[in-house]
Amino acid sequence: MYNFIFHNPTKLIFGKDTIKELSKEIPKEKHTLLLYGKGSIKTNGVYEQIKNALAGYKITEFPGISPNPKYELLMEAVKLIKQEKIDFLLAVGGGSVLDGTKFIAAAVNYRGNDPWEIVAHQAPISEALPIGTVLTLPATGSEMNCGAVISKASTPDKLGFGHPLLYPKFSILDPTTTFSLPHEQTANGITDAFIHVTEQYLTYPCNTPLQDRMAEGILLTLLESAPKVFANPHDYAIRANLMLASTLALNDWLSAGTAGDWTTHSLGHELTAKFGLDHAKTLAIILPNLLEYKRQQKHAKLLQYAQRVWQINVGSDDAKITQAITKTREFFESLGIKTRLSQYGIDKTAIPEIVKQLERHACAKLGENGDITLEDSANILLMSL
Amino acid sequence: MYNFIFHNPTKLIFGKDTIKELSKEIPKEKHTLLLYGKGSIKTNGVYEQIKNALAGYKITEFPGISPNPKYELLMEAVKLIKQEKIDFLLAVGGGSVLDGTKFIAAAVNYRGNDPWEIVAHQAPISEALPIGTVLTLPATGSEMNCGAVISKASTPDKLGFGHPLLYPKFSILDPTTTFSLPHEQTANGITDAFIHVTEQYLTYPCNTPLQDRMAEGILLTLLESAPKVFANPHDYAIRANLMLASTLALNDWLSAGTAGDWTTHSLGHELTAKFGLDHAKTLAIILPNLLEYKRQQKHAKLLQYAQRVWQINVGSDDAKITQAITKTREFFESLGIKTRLSQYGIDKTAIPEIVKQLERHACAKLGENGDITLEDSANILLMSL
Repeated sequence: MYNFIFHNPTKLIFGKDTIKELSKEIPKEKHTLLLYGKGSIKTNGVYEQIKNALAGYKITEFPGISPNPKYELLMEAVKLIKQEKIDFLLAVGGGSVLDGTKFIAAAVNYRGNDPWEIVAHQAPISEALPIGTVLTLPATGSEMNCGAVISKASTPDKLGFGHPLLYPKFSILDPTTTFSLPHEQTANGITDAFIHVTEQYLTYPCNTPLQDRMAEGILLTLLESAPKVFANPHDYAIRANLMLASTLALNDWLSAGTAGDWTTHSLGHELTAKFGLDHAKTLAIILPNLLEYKRQQKHAKLLQYAQRVWQINVGSDDAKITQAITKTREFFESLGIKTRLSQYGIDKTAIPEIVKQLERHACAKLGENGDITLEDSANILLMSL
Repeated sequence: MYNFIFHNPTKLIFGKDTIKELSKEIPKEKHTLLLYGKGSIKTNGVYEQIKNALAGYKITEFPGISPNPKYELLMEAVKLIKQEKIDFLLAVGGGSVLDGTKFIAAAVNYRGNDPWEIVAHQAPISEALPIGTVLTLPATGSEMNCGAVISKASTPDKLGFGHPLLYPKFSILDPTTTFSLPHEQTANGITDAFIHVTEQYLTYPCNTPLQDRMAEGILLTLLESAPKVFANPHDYAIRANLMLASTLALNDWLSAGTAGDWTTHSLGHELTAKFGLDHAKTLAIILPNLLEYKRQQKHAKLLQYAQRVWQINVGSDDAKITQAITKTREFFESLGIKTRLSQYGIDKTAIPEIVKQLERHACAKLGENGDITLEDSANILLMSL
């Protein structure tokens, strides 16, 4: 186990009818900016519950934060906050709204020239506006971590950053708010959470049986819950487990003392930046091929994954690993997610451009061993066609 | 899954050579009280590392906190803190020192008549001195929770209390500090952690597959690590996993959304208060008999425990459960822990007194269903002879 520091101060408020707790968490004297997406919270009752919970509060709204939140739009919120002297941010939605809000929180009092530097060059921040969240789409884990991924339309860039000041003060997770999610968003969320786990688990043995079993527990719960949630989208217990699984997949415990890969995310981000593919779909395209490409180096953990997650106990070790990779791909496909670039109309002519983007984004050495070169990334993309 | 609030702000600093981080965590201007036990930290190098890390700090010492820390002694520390205007508490040792320090932190500015009320009647506290810890004996989980157990010699009482203000600000866990632990303390620590998990896991199904698998992961890690640590007490990886397992066993995740039993602890505390038995040993005496006594109500979880933790997959469900309970007892015995009251010289004449103590401590309705009466407790004690 490597040395680590774990310090996650987010207060998680989990369960039915918990949105009403908002008034206990946001000080009455705050001027709150309510940030959300394209308005689904107005049809599923969440908006109304928030307004009721915060009756009498001074609230300004900033709707319209779309998937892969854009720097250009987020800077409009920064301007509004300065104008209106807003001092609390309430993000309502999924990872895109939450991540966008984290950027805004860091950008408002950024002392440098252009807040994009926070994303592009991990420029230091020394303060951030306080954030609270109401999660309505379990997927990214942003509700209980200090990271965010932001895009810039003009370049195109999609990059991650993080800072301890950006842990939400609180996050409210009411599983009933996810009952009405479309099949595609539920499927994307399950895939995203699944691959957050594999990025932290399918590396090399680090003598971390606790973290490994936590990872396997999340993967097994996702596998068991997925068919059930599509059969019974209004089943509270299933939705609750999926919601908590997404949070646990990326709340710093799985990375504590372990190695991380994150190649799948790096390649996936470029595919989204360039072609606008859903984040989860890019991950489902890359992961099986990355695992195949690096199966020698990842042998021990892939075998453990085959045995403990997929219960594959017959055949040679290599056969078990092959079967586990195949089953991983089939799982994503069972959710309705296509796992080949060609199925999204992308052919091999795109690969040089993607590789150029990776180079521009300092991704020439990826993987848990830092040995996945640009050439390797090109090979993985070729396998992904 | 039940509704829950999870909010654990403790900063965990884990790994080799981490005691030197102390100076980053305690503000230089603080007057720190260094609390510890009977002085083993002076022979294992921990004391010296702390003094080096805090060179130039104003430090007062309060040694001599013994197992089952006593109210009477702790009040001497409270007096010293007031006299010397101490404003930071650094607890160094195992759960007894940490728990004692939590009581002190709450007692210093207690506004009522007698701080014992905090323990005996959960009297409210509104402030507490900040606490940091250096853990040297993994067992109780006190390093990452807000609870504590305090004893009063005169009565005798041994009671638990807790308050969110009592989460340590930071806890430093360097597994190398545990290399020199005597066999008995390592065995007690493993047993304590194991039974913290079972108290939160062996109840009834709550539709919480993630928490269940986290619990099973901790139990499996303890089972696997125990024989290894006695064969290789200086093996870093094994000590690290045992240390982290103890923390995870009681840092609020296993109780999030689940039912809790805690009967074993309630009965065990009375045995310690009355006869001075080690905490872990009292738990090992009670648990197997509680499980047997409540096997009908705990059937579903006991079966899951038999299958997933003990890998018992043949025989009837009842036979599997019987075997799992037997194996649980045998595990404690394999650590060198006697699991019968009679082996400690306690016979059935003690039972009425223990039951009277339980009644005095408002323990007439124990268990996850609140249906373990004083008569049931007497029966469990009788089975434990």
